[in-house]
Amino acid sequence: MKRTIVCWGELLLRLSAPGHERWLQSPRFEVHVGGAEANVAVGLAGFGHPVAMLGAVADNALGAAALGELRRAGVDTSRMRRAPGRMGLYFFEQGALQRPSEVLYDRADSAFARLPATAWDWPGLLAGAGHLHVSGITPALGMESAQAALDAVRTARSLGLGVSVDGNYRPKLWQAWGGDAPGLLRALMAEADGLFVNHRDLGLALGIELDRGEPVASFAAAAEAAFAAFPHLRWMAATTRGAEATQSQSLGAVMIERGGALNVAPPQRLDGIVDRIGGGDAFAAGILHGRSREWSTGEVLAFGLAAGAYKHSQPGDALRASEADIRAWQAGGADVRR
Amino acid sequence: MKRTIVCWGELLLRLSAPGHERWLQSPRFEVHVGGAEANVAVGLAGFGHPVAMLGAVADNALGAAALGELRRAGVDTSRMRRAPGRMGLYFFEQGALQRPSEVLYDRADSAFARLPATAWDWPGLLAGAGHLHVSGITPALGMESAQAALDAVRTARSLGLGVSVDGNYRPKLWQAWGGDAPGLLRALMAEADGLFVNHRDLGLALGIELDRGEPVASFAAAAEAAFAAFPHLRWMAATTRGAEATQSQSLGAVMIERGGALNVAPPQRLDGIVDRIGGGDAFAAGILHGRSREWSTGEVLAFGLAAGAYKHSQPGDALRASEADIRAWQAGGADVRR
Amino acid sequence: MKRTIVCWGELLLRLSAPGHERWLQSPRFEVHVGGAEANVAVGLAGFGHPVAMLGAVADNALGAAALGELRRAGVDTSRMRRAPGRMGLYFFEQGALQRPSEVLYDRADSAFARLPATAWDWPGLLAGAGHLHVSGITPALGMESAQAALDAVRTARSLGLGVSVDGNYRPKLWQAWGGDAPGLLRALMAEADGLFVNHRDLGLALGIELDRGEPVASFAAAAEAAFAAFPHLRWMAATTRGAEATQSQSLGAVMIERGGALNVAPPQRLDGIVDRIGGGDAFAAGILHGRSREWSTGEVLAFGLAAGAYKHSQPGDALRASEADIRAWQAGGADVRR
Amino acid sequence: MKRTIVCWGELLLRLSAPGHERWLQSPRFEVHVGGAEANVAVGLAGFGHPVAMLGAVADNALGAAALGELRRAGVDTSRMRRAPGRMGLYFFEQGALQRPSEVLYDRADSAFARLPATAWDWPGLLAGAGHLHVSGITPALGMESAQAALDAVRTARSLGLGVSVDGNYRPKLWQAWGGDAPGLLRALMAEADGLFVNHRDLGLALGIELDRGEPVASFAAAAEAAFAAFPHLRWMAATTRGAEATQSQSLGAVMIERGGALNVAPPQRLDGIVDRIGGGDAFAAGILHGRSREWSTGEVLAFGLAAGAYKHSQPGDALRASEADIRAWQAGGADVRR
Amino acid sequence: MKRTIVCWGELLLRLSAPGHERWLQSPRFEVHVGGAEANVAVGLAGFGHPVAMLGAVADNALGAAALGELRRAGVDTSRMRRAPGRMGLYFFEQGALQRPSEVLYDRADSAFARLPATAWDWPGLLAGAGHLHVSGITPALGMESAQAALDAVRTARSLGLGVSVDGNYRPKLWQAWGGDAPGLLRALMAEADGLFVNHRDLGLALGIELDRGEPVASFAAAAEAAFAAFPHLRWMAATTRGAEATQSQSLGAVMIERGGALNVAPPQRLDGIVDRIGGGDAFAAGILHGRSREWSTGEVLAFGLAAGAYKHSQPGDALRASEADIRAWQAGGADVRR
Amino acid sequence: MKRTIVCWGELLLRLSAPGHERWLQSPRFEVHVGGAEANVAVGLAGFGHPVAMLGAVADNALGAAALGELRRAGVDTSRMRRAPGRMGLYFFEQGALQRPSEVLYDRADSAFARLPATAWDWPGLLAGAGHLHVSGITPALGMESAQAALDAVRTARSLGLGVSVDGNYRPKLWQAWGGDAPGLLRALMAEADGLFVNHRDLGLALGIELDRGEPVASFAAAAEAAFAAFPHLRWMAATTRGAEATQSQSLGAVMIERGGALNVAPPQRLDGIVDRIGGGDAFAAGILHGRSREWSTGEVLAFGLAAGAYKHSQPGDALRASEADIRAWQAGGADVRR
Repeated sequence: MKRTIVCWGELLLRLSAPGHERWLQSPRFEVHVGGAEANVAVGLAGFGHPVAMLGAVADNALGAAALGELRRAGVDTSRMRRAPGRMGLYFFEQGALQRPSEVLYDRADSAFARLPATAWDWPGLLAGAGHLHVSGITPALGMESAQAALDAVRTARSLGLGVSVDGNYRPKLWQAWGGDAPGLLRALMAEADGLFVNHRDLGLALGIELDRGEPVASFAAAAEAAFAAFPHLRWMAATTRGAEATQSQSLGAVMIERGGALNVAPPQRLDGIVDRIGGGDAFAAGILHGRSREWSTGEVLAFGLAAGAYKHSQPGDALRASEADIRAWQAGGADVRR
Repeated sequence: MKRTIVCWGELLLRLSAPGHERWLQSPRFEVHVGGAEANVAVGLAGFGHPVAMLGAVADNALGAAALGELRRAGVDTSRMRRAPGRMGLYFFEQGALQRPSEVLYDRADSAFARLPATAWDWPGLLAGAGHLHVSGITPALGMESAQAALDAVRTARSLGLGVSVDGNYRPKLWQAWGGDAPGLLRALMAEADGLFVNHRDLGLALGIELDRGEPVASFAAAAEAAFAAFPHLRWMAATTRGAEATQSQSLGAVMIERGGALNVAPPQRLDGIVDRIGGGDAFAAGILHGRSREWSTGEVLAFGLAAGAYKHSQPGDALRASEADIRAWQAGGADVRR
Repeated sequence: MKRTIVCWGELLLRLSAPGHERWLQSPRFEVHVGGAEANVAVGLAGFGHPVAMLGAVADNALGAAALGELRRAGVDTSRMRRAPGRMGLYFFEQGALQRPSEVLYDRADSAFARLPATAWDWPGLLAGAGHLHVSGITPALGMESAQAALDAVRTARSLGLGVSVDGNYRPKLWQAWGGDAPGLLRALMAEADGLFVNHRDLGLALGIELDRGEPVASFAAAAEAAFAAFPHLRWMAATTRGAEATQSQSLGAVMIERGGALNVAPPQRLDGIVDRIGGGDAFAAGILHGRSREWSTGEVLAFGLAAGAYKHSQPGDALRASEADIRAWQAGGADVRR
Repeated sequence: MKRTIVCWGELLLRLSAPGHERWLQSPRFEVHVGGAEANVAVGLAGFGHPVAMLGAVADNALGAAALGELRRAGVDTSRMRRAPGRMGLYFFEQGALQRPSEVLYDRADSAFARLPATAWDWPGLLAGAGHLHVSGITPALGMESAQAALDAVRTARSLGLGVSVDGNYRPKLWQAWGGDAPGLLRALMAEADGLFVNHRDLGLALGIELDRGEPVASFAAAAEAAFAAFPHLRWMAATTRGAEATQSQSLGAVMIERGGALNVAPPQRLDGIVDRIGGGDAFAAGILHGRSREWSTGEVLAFGLAAGAYKHSQPGDALRASEADIRAWQAGGADVRR
Repeated sequence: MKRTIVCWGELLLRLSAPGHERWLQSPRFEVHVGGAEANVAVGLAGFGHPVAMLGAVADNALGAAALGELRRAGVDTSRMRRAPGRMGLYFFEQGALQRPSEVLYDRADSAFARLPATAWDWPGLLAGAGHLHVSGITPALGMESAQAALDAVRTARSLGLGVSVDGNYRPKLWQAWGGDAPGLLRALMAEADGLFVNHRDLGLALGIELDRGEPVASFAAAAEAAFAAFPHLRWMAATTRGAEATQSQSLGAVMIERGGALNVAPPQRLDGIVDRIGGGDAFAAGILHGRSREWSTGEVLAFGLAAGAYKHSQPGDALRASEADIRAWQAGGADVRR
Repeated sequence: MKRTIVCWGELLLRLSAPGHERWLQSPRFEVHVGGAEANVAVGLAGFGHPVAMLGAVADNALGAAALGELRRAGVDTSRMRRAPGRMGLYFFEQGALQRPSEVLYDRADSAFARLPATAWDWPGLLAGAGHLHVSGITPALGMESAQAALDAVRTARSLGLGVSVDGNYRPKLWQAWGGDAPGLLRALMAEADGLFVNHRDLGLALGIELDRGEPVASFAAAAEAAFAAFPHLRWMAATTRGAEATQSQSLGAVMIERGGALNVAPPQRLDGIVDRIGGGDAFAAGILHGRSREWSTGEVLAFGLAAGAYKHSQPGDALRASEADIRAWQAGGADVRR
């Protein structure tokens, strides 16, 4: 029987201006439910995995609605807490041409961020699970969240779960409370057997400069350093993005297994992007799915890149696609399917 | 030349579920800009007064948009501050039948509430103004806001401005920081020459029981106590509401001038309410307008009640009507105007 | 074979603020196609009659779209002209409670109004038709339109068609060009065998006071005067409306045939009105339909009133209902039909 | 531990014209997921019960989306089948005044209806459940569905589950295949310990006339007959509806336990109804909830009626309310809750 | 006088998810009326032809609304039947990037498909017409529809009408009833003087392999075979499509007259496609229009291709453009027209 | 203290079909407030300038709403008149691919256009201002508007204000009243120290042919002629546009100061344009802003071009961007800003 994948992190409500409008240009917001780890959970549920979300939402109607959206996508929310406080929000404005999209966070003091590290019963929460996915956003929320993140990955490792960590370094969040980003991220990464990081995130965690002037070489350097620093680490993957315009970008990816050769999936053009948010999370979902299928690293990487790219064709934060959908993308040919 | 009316208080963004839906039943919010004092400001601008809003919004795009909405309604925002922090929000769900509408506040730690009392240059802010309107919501936000409110009304009085205070007692806000609601509200009311309060608000401030079993008698008792307690007070007014159903209510009003007889405007039926939010603020705007016109108290009260009732016919937080619109309402006859 | 009913008059685009909003409160308009005579045409088409609209629209895409809407409703537009100029518009704001709905006309200098009286080939336009319906709005548009209206009804009469005229006195339109409203309306009515007028319209046309203090008696007086003044007249009908509130009104009706007794359909309550525009035109359609079926006057009147009342349950300018729909309304019982 | 309540029946997509428009008056449909039994399931989930839906959806994206909506509402869909065929649909048009709402079914040949009776593994589907709820719509879909319904209730009874049956007699569905409605409904009811039926449904099933000229007396007569005919039956309940207008109706209810007195909850006015669909299903959910709490019959009935009435204040097919929401409704007072 | 063009086939309602959403991602559908032959009819009406639609819709409100949409576009629906059964539907999801758009048919057992071949009075339906257009979708619906299609084209030929046939081979529809697709399509094509087919459709009908590795050569081979097999055939045309991405494709076209040279219109890029559905039908309308104008084959082909490409710039199933619109497209230059 | 920039011209309401639909394809219009000069005013307000709009709106609710929109954007409307008549309108349809967007003007006889030249108190209107911006659209509205335009620029010059003129030659408007376009535009330009014109506008004004076969050379020739003809002229700027497709264009710009070298900003690709309307006005705002900052001509031109291009990424008529937004555009890199 397939074991449950669990993702731990904060759920956010996204409030988007319609179309390409400025905020409040017309008096409406469109709402999506997101969050880096929740997006991975939804993506994996779409690929048919049993997935459970861990975390907490506000104990009000918005929190309940956010849980409902995860359930709608097929994610088990029975282990989620409802805690006092507010829902984290972010406001989103969709750019165009060379006008970038903008994110305005309003997530301070959320029900999730206010929970003490001791609030989480890790052995209970991880019971029956086969894999834990976390991201570097959570420790950035404050010391309690950081401690909880370390507790989570350490307990998971001790219980024999697979552990994946997405770097997701967000300087503004760390600066807000003066947390030791390098130290905490390094400690988090040290428990992972899989990392979604590029040379910038890893260089920060290790305190070394890994930029080799070009994404693939930099990733190779980062991987070498990571395998040296983190003995538990078995694989590492990252996307490479070129953002010429808001709706016209390119997306490639790189992946390496310990002891294996570097796999490079060359950038593909994405002209006419619908929504770029969650592309990295969809990539992560694709990689985790591929690894669970025990495909070759090259196949895993190609699938992950296609999943990440596919997300750009859909509104909302999370990938909503089946494995067959991603396969069709990879096969190419975009005429109407009847 | 007519002198400017200034209103000081917090601006909020209201996020409403469409129609009569539950929050996030469908993934959209409709947005309005509101706030008890801003609603009075917009109402007065509609009646042709020069009005300036005082206060602070977040120094981000949402704050700027909120200011724009006030300007759109004809309110001067040039004295508004833009301060660090977030915009106060509230979520709104429109009920029906005996299902009540619901408000979920998300306004803690707003840019406005975080400002220290010393941030406000009252002589400068009040320069050239003829009247200041504040409400009891602002001191409920915290000690700094409470001190600022007292500074505001005291400076206004010392500069010879008229001062009106709307009671607006909100227990949840006071409890959140353990403020001395009675003492602070009493001190605030003591500076007013006009009060929008009922017997409950006044009883709380004075620490006495004023309920006489029926609204009009209770108001009369409250007025007697208020004129005794507050030597500067010249008039007092309140609405009386019967809420049989969310869309079917009745609204009456009472008003008294020091030394004058009690004026009672009997309740009128409001069947088919569009949006009840801001009804009391529209009433306040109507009363202030009528008093500025030096109408008789009975005329002032009738106009104020019509303004408050009229608001129930419009979506959004603030009354958007001219004096002629209110007059037409009073004249009755609701067939299409061509 | 049933002969075609033709309606002649101006088509207008109606631009409505959404819900109960003020104009441009949010940046959208909803669009309907209307016009007093076109509404009658659509109503009759819904009852299964062959109906043709006569008139003119602007020779641009908006005019073409307006024709398309009539065709959608089953009205023949093949005799319509496309002429230089603009489409007549009107802006609409839906009130609530005692706040009335408002109409803002922007129809001056329309393609229809600019056509000279000589532009209309009446014998050709009326070929094959059995009945012509016009209203008093058209002669109010200017001398050319007034002359054309007289030409229309006189030609119709000479060709043996039935002729119905809806009074629809609009003082603002007449004042704009100083037309002789009484003389022209009287001349128009003189050609009709059926009139939709109340005592006000008829009193104006005949220059006599017909108000008897109450609608039914006034209508009776008006009918007596009308049958005396207009030898061709065979019947006359009118609605009686009580407009306590925008969404809560009452609608009754009266009708009389030359030499017959007065038929009175007592007012029925309409609580929860969706859209009151076009109620009178739907009444006219119902009366014309009933007469074509050769029902008794009482049956005709009851059906006409039900058609007029039914329109209040539908958004848009024109009644969209079958005879069976109106029959079901008359039978009462408003539970879901499955 | 509370045992799961299971509901078995067809899921439908409802496609509604916006506002009070006729179908396709504007080119949009709003979509809800419903079905008599699913509505009960969603209502019960809102009251905090573990609930599982049994049944089948089309094995396409619409079927998957329908399941997602149930999960969003907190209903377990893990026992649902995905079967070849189409999703059942119904089109809905919201009336107003005396214009009734209309339902147009398009559900023939659905994936659910095409399944043979042997497709359902009742012991497995009912494992761990404490109660089964079905309705008389399902046997009306065809012989296989009818047989499956009988298998379901018989297996449930044999396993010791509670069984409730909602009559829901739909003549059009029975006529379509010539099924023996009385015989099959009687056999279904015979297994129930609780029935949601009125005198019409029961009279049909038993082949006797139960109309006593007035709803309460007729229900009493029906209950007497039912307790005589069905030895397993322990209680019976029904709503009584007065439908003066589409948005203005009254709703009462009656309930009786075997050997107990008749409980009558007098009709309450519902003026300003938002959506009447699913009112009976919400009543059923309320009754089942109250009984699970072991309240008195009078309390159960009052709660059920309030739940049924509450549904009329919400758009969509299913009640979305907590026990506290219903309690607040019962307590009365509909002013804004802050 | 220009003679009417008649198109015979099924009308469908298309229900589209908004924007690029998955079905039911948000709870709305946008509705269009389409169908291969109806799209040709609407396109031709836009070019100024008298066009009548032949066929049948469900005898319910949806069928009536579908007819209304055709009339709105200027198509005569007076020869349409209203028959028992349901409207055929299809659900549509708009892709993006390499995510293809998806069509989910729900058209089985429609009112149209259920009609027996004997239901169609071909001499009456074709009276006064100059041309009949049908497609290969209709015979795919079942034996009765197939027989009716043959009756139609044979009667048309015998009455001297022009006949065009669009191949439109849909394997899923044929497989559903096991029809003899090659035989029936060949019999249908044998009556045409014009064919819209490519080498795949024709190869199927004739049972020969016509793929020459590249679209133009394959079409040439197909044309040679077609002129040999079908003595009545005078011309043949097809589009050539390259679908690199959902919103970025290329469209070319080829056409040949019996005895003439092959005309090739090279592919043009379509970057930023709005809606690709109906592109082939718009091409057919353009070709039929051009031929009716007796332009040279090259001019006809260029116009047809421009019409087909133009459709990609418009939402909905059918081209809505005038000849002048297509001419402007051909002339190039896409800046705002004022 | 920065002095106010004043812009004089007509305000228009723009009514747009949703998405890429044809007018009234669905029954809605989206509304924006625009006008060549108002767009410049809004753009400049976004850059932080004190800006006042001069002109007149209809003295009805639409006029008031239009003023509100300007205030919302930060433009002072206190000098605006409200005059009898109608609001100028224009209808807009958004094209796609090679289907051009279309503008249908409905602005004849507007409140603005009906005002006599003597209605404008130029010394009062220009009091305290530092710069006046007008366009060649205003004199095209009629002799009174033309005279007023000349009065405006002459008074401004005599008072020492800077004067900029945007050519904006619109032949249809001039032809409607037979105005002397060359003479009036030449007289207007003669008062400017800055011109936004290309060789076509200038060639028309001066009656000479300035086309040199390519935009840059033609602009150079035009500038030479302009500096010779207009002794007050100090600078001249223009955009160069390539419109390959409605959503895919290129935009460059040229600018020259008297006695300086020609500055050329090469065309940049704009692929995925949201709304092209107001691009030239945004360019003008950018140039005026840059000049007020006393940047080099090259810097001014680059900023102006970026501002003009940026507008293409936003819905609506006017640029809504800060200087920082434009700088970010210039810096490139369009990934999400968090």
